[in-house]
Amino acid sequence: MQFTAQQIASILNGTVEGDSSVAVSALAKIEEAGTGSLSFLANPKYEQYLYSTDASIVIVNNSQVLASPVKATLIRVEDAYSAFSVLLEAYNTIKLDKSGIEQPCFIHPTAQIGENVYIGAFSYIGPGVKVGDKSKIYPNSYIGDNATLGKNVTLFSGVKVYFDCALGDNVIVHSGAVIGSDGFGFAPTADGTYKKIAQIGNVILEDDVEVGSNTTVDRATMGSTIIRKGAKIDNLVQIAHNVEVGANTVIAAQTGISGSTKIGERVMMGGQVGIAGHLSVANGSQFSARAGINSSIKQEGQAWGGGPHMPYKDYLRAYAKLRQLPELDKRVYELEKIIKELKKD
Amino acid sequence: MQFTAQQIASILNGTVEGDSSVAVSALAKIEEAGTGSLSFLANPKYEQYLYSTDASIVIVNNSQVLASPVKATLIRVEDAYSAFSVLLEAYNTIKLDKSGIEQPCFIHPTAQIGENVYIGAFSYIGPGVKVGDKSKIYPNSYIGDNATLGKNVTLFSGVKVYFDCALGDNVIVHSGAVIGSDGFGFAPTADGTYKKIAQIGNVILEDDVEVGSNTTVDRATMGSTIIRKGAKIDNLVQIAHNVEVGANTVIAAQTGISGSTKIGERVMMGGQVGIAGHLSVANGSQFSARAGINSSIKQEGQAWGGGPHMPYKDYLRAYAKLRQLPELDKRVYELEKIIKELKKD
Amino acid sequence: MQFTAQQIASILNGTVEGDSSVAVSALAKIEEAGTGSLSFLANPKYEQYLYSTDASIVIVNNSQVLASPVKATLIRVEDAYSAFSVLLEAYNTIKLDKSGIEQPCFIHPTAQIGENVYIGAFSYIGPGVKVGDKSKIYPNSYIGDNATLGKNVTLFSGVKVYFDCALGDNVIVHSGAVIGSDGFGFAPTADGTYKKIAQIGNVILEDDVEVGSNTTVDRATMGSTIIRKGAKIDNLVQIAHNVEVGANTVIAAQTGISGSTKIGERVMMGGQVGIAGHLSVANGSQFSARAGINSSIKQEGQAWGGGPHMPYKDYLRAYAKLRQLPELDKRVYELEKIIKELKKD
Repeated sequence: MQFTAQQIASILNGTVEGDSSVAVSALAKIEEAGTGSLSFLANPKYEQYLYSTDASIVIVNNSQVLASPVKATLIRVEDAYSAFSVLLEAYNTIKLDKSGIEQPCFIHPTAQIGENVYIGAFSYIGPGVKVGDKSKIYPNSYIGDNATLGKNVTLFSGVKVYFDCALGDNVIVHSGAVIGSDGFGFAPTADGTYKKIAQIGNVILEDDVEVGSNTTVDRATMGSTIIRKGAKIDNLVQIAHNVEVGANTVIAAQTGISGSTKIGERVMMGGQVGIAGHLSVANGSQFSARAGINSSIKQEGQAWGGGPHMPYKDYLRAYAKLRQLPELDKRVYELEKIIKELKKD
Repeated sequence: MQFTAQQIASILNGTVEGDSSVAVSALAKIEEAGTGSLSFLANPKYEQYLYSTDASIVIVNNSQVLASPVKATLIRVEDAYSAFSVLLEAYNTIKLDKSGIEQPCFIHPTAQIGENVYIGAFSYIGPGVKVGDKSKIYPNSYIGDNATLGKNVTLFSGVKVYFDCALGDNVIVHSGAVIGSDGFGFAPTADGTYKKIAQIGNVILEDDVEVGSNTTVDRATMGSTIIRKGAKIDNLVQIAHNVEVGANTVIAAQTGISGSTKIGERVMMGGQVGIAGHLSVANGSQFSARAGINSSIKQEGQAWGGGPHMPYKDYLRAYAKLRQLPELDKRVYELEKIIKELKKD
Repeated sequence: MQFTAQQIASILNGTVEGDSSVAVSALAKIEEAGTGSLSFLANPKYEQYLYSTDASIVIVNNSQVLASPVKATLIRVEDAYSAFSVLLEAYNTIKLDKSGIEQPCFIHPTAQIGENVYIGAFSYIGPGVKVGDKSKIYPNSYIGDNATLGKNVTLFSGVKVYFDCALGDNVIVHSGAVIGSDGFGFAPTADGTYKKIAQIGNVILEDDVEVGSNTTVDRATMGSTIIRKGAKIDNLVQIAHNVEVGANTVIAAQTGISGSTKIGERVMMGGQVGIAGHLSVANGSQFSARAGINSSIKQEGQAWGGGPHMPYKDYLRAYAKLRQLPELDKRVYELEKIIKELKKD
């Protein structure tokens, strides 16, 4: 698809400066853009690129003053960054615009499929499954018995949803993520072996949740593992059984949350965080990357770091000193020697 | 499926107190149970819920004394927790009762398929593969050439088993787990590039092993990567080439074990543990979450923490002091000042 | 397949000592080899096994002196290790020799498929995809719209490649790896929810890159996430959006690299390393397992450890002292007491 500067200016309610017939078919960063692509300038730090870019069109703020001649056609708008975001989203919507049911796929006769859905080839829709309108299930995905998907859900290729799990509206799950595998529950027996504890609960992903690729969310032993509305989970994250993640909480990659822990709302976690089981974490808590949380956090809105965790400022100070520990040890040794001498006197 | 209190009491050899015709179709925790569900009370801590629960049936110990009136029908048994576990397992068995061969699937003519198996749609059974009786292979799974599965094996949707790997009886592998991918072996060459070292071994999962979702177990360079009988491995765990994991060892999520390391029996690992390569770990060792093991452990049955690891008690004491390190530094500085003064005198 | 000692000697240009008609069908380590298998002896440390092995054939150096009688047929060559490597690779090539297009698979009419390719059943080749000659796509894989694969690429079962991604020649991707899922980008809004930022870039894996099982490589927000030529990435690694990994860099399992970070060439990372976002890491840097990199590294070829990172030697010294921190604290306390006494005098 190609769009002319004139067409784009109309969409954005902007004004064209330069050749209004020049056409673009891609979006790019101003420092990387080539001929045939459209870019934007919002951050003054990047202004230098405006004069050297190969982009065919650049969106700029109405207020942008030109210090040198510009090769590209300009489209002037009130807020270049917002305008570009609109185009970015439109571009993505077109890219991901799939519909129809590809063959072969497996749809059990008892499954209920909404309208305007996409079901990719080799996807499996089990007995009793419900798929809401406008949902997209990419190829090679699996939806187990009686699982439900709301409206406008996207499961990218190879997502696995175990039986009985429930996904709300607008949920996005990336490739390879597993929703509803068994919680890790085993009872030790007298002979040293372990007996599996049946995991009969499910997983609920509320509306607007996004789950990253190859992330795993285990089903509850009983009841539900719940990811609340609007929470965003990155790749390779482990959510154990009976965990609850609060609304609008954001969890970066490779973090692990142990069983039955309850995370509040608007919590932010860096990557590779680890949280022990059966804890509760107050709303608005912030964990720096690699934090190890081993006790409940009751005070809201605090920042934490280190493992075991401590207030973020303490963490910074303590780990900075860690490197000087051998030197500190030596200083104490010197003091001990001197004291010994002094005491002799 | 619905069961009446009378039917359940018969199964559990219990006695009904209340309406024996009331029916249930779900199992639930007593604090969450709704109408139509069955729960249990074993832990006195939860007794309060017995008087307020909406559960239709509650299983209680014969010895349970009632402090207030109870709405639910009670079933009295010797041991309420065990009785409930029996139902839990029965429930799960019914839920997971799949059999037959769904189409389309790919079964190579040279594969040998046992009796009463389930093979889901879009699953691939390669040349020379053997699948034992009563095994269940959920949709979208892959079993490479000459791999073997024992009896009563369950591969959930999307499991990948590379060629030549061997799974024993009753093995359970969760979605997305990869068994037998190449070990990470490369030889540096003179020009700075790496040459791949062929990984021609396999992976053996002995009887009763369970592997969590998206866990990866690499094939041996030569010989076998082995997970011994009854070991349980959680989600997103990495087991490198030529590792051996001992019988009844339990490994929590996101742990990684490097190449050629040999883990003993009945070892317990918390989440996110890391173990270096070419080590051996004694039977019964216990690693707290995040422990980093960088040397072999010879003494059996000891607890370890921290990274690099130290005895668990030392770990607790050392990391508790870590936060006070800046303060300790200041105290030493004060001492140095005083000593300087004293020496002047 | 069986080969006689005579046939193998011919291939390796070696000389047979013993029964030249004995045949083998497997390769094994000398300490584990059974009848019917071929092994080698290169490291003198293993010489004892030469006299006890059940291997039918052992490849040894021309210079090997026999201290005792040997049961196996020997093949003498200039360099036993190299000779064995040649066989190892030949063995692997035969094992992985797949071709043809299995049915059912999904190949969009607009896809361009090269010559001598293997496309396994249930694999999905989307619109506009290009697959180079001799590439092998194992069953249950997915290649999204307009993605391109070079020549001699291997995607093992269940690999997911999102739209627009580009893989060079000889790239190997193991099962469950996800190439091109959305970067983790969300803009906070006034009401506390997050708005998804469209991720319209792609992922480029240059020639000779290998990616481990269940590893995730996110697409760029705009532009490309790039893994440069010859880089090797282990299992369960997270590569965030807009990251660049330099040529011949090696990354061990469960490492995570945050967004927009640029890793140099020939960098070596141990397992479970974490690297913060928007950093640059100099060529030839070495990170020990678990290192946590939170600032850019400008000096080339240095070794680092600890989290936050410090020079590797400092790391070893500091963490060794960590365990003695409670004792150090006590020593300072003792000094404080003595000083107090001394000052009284």
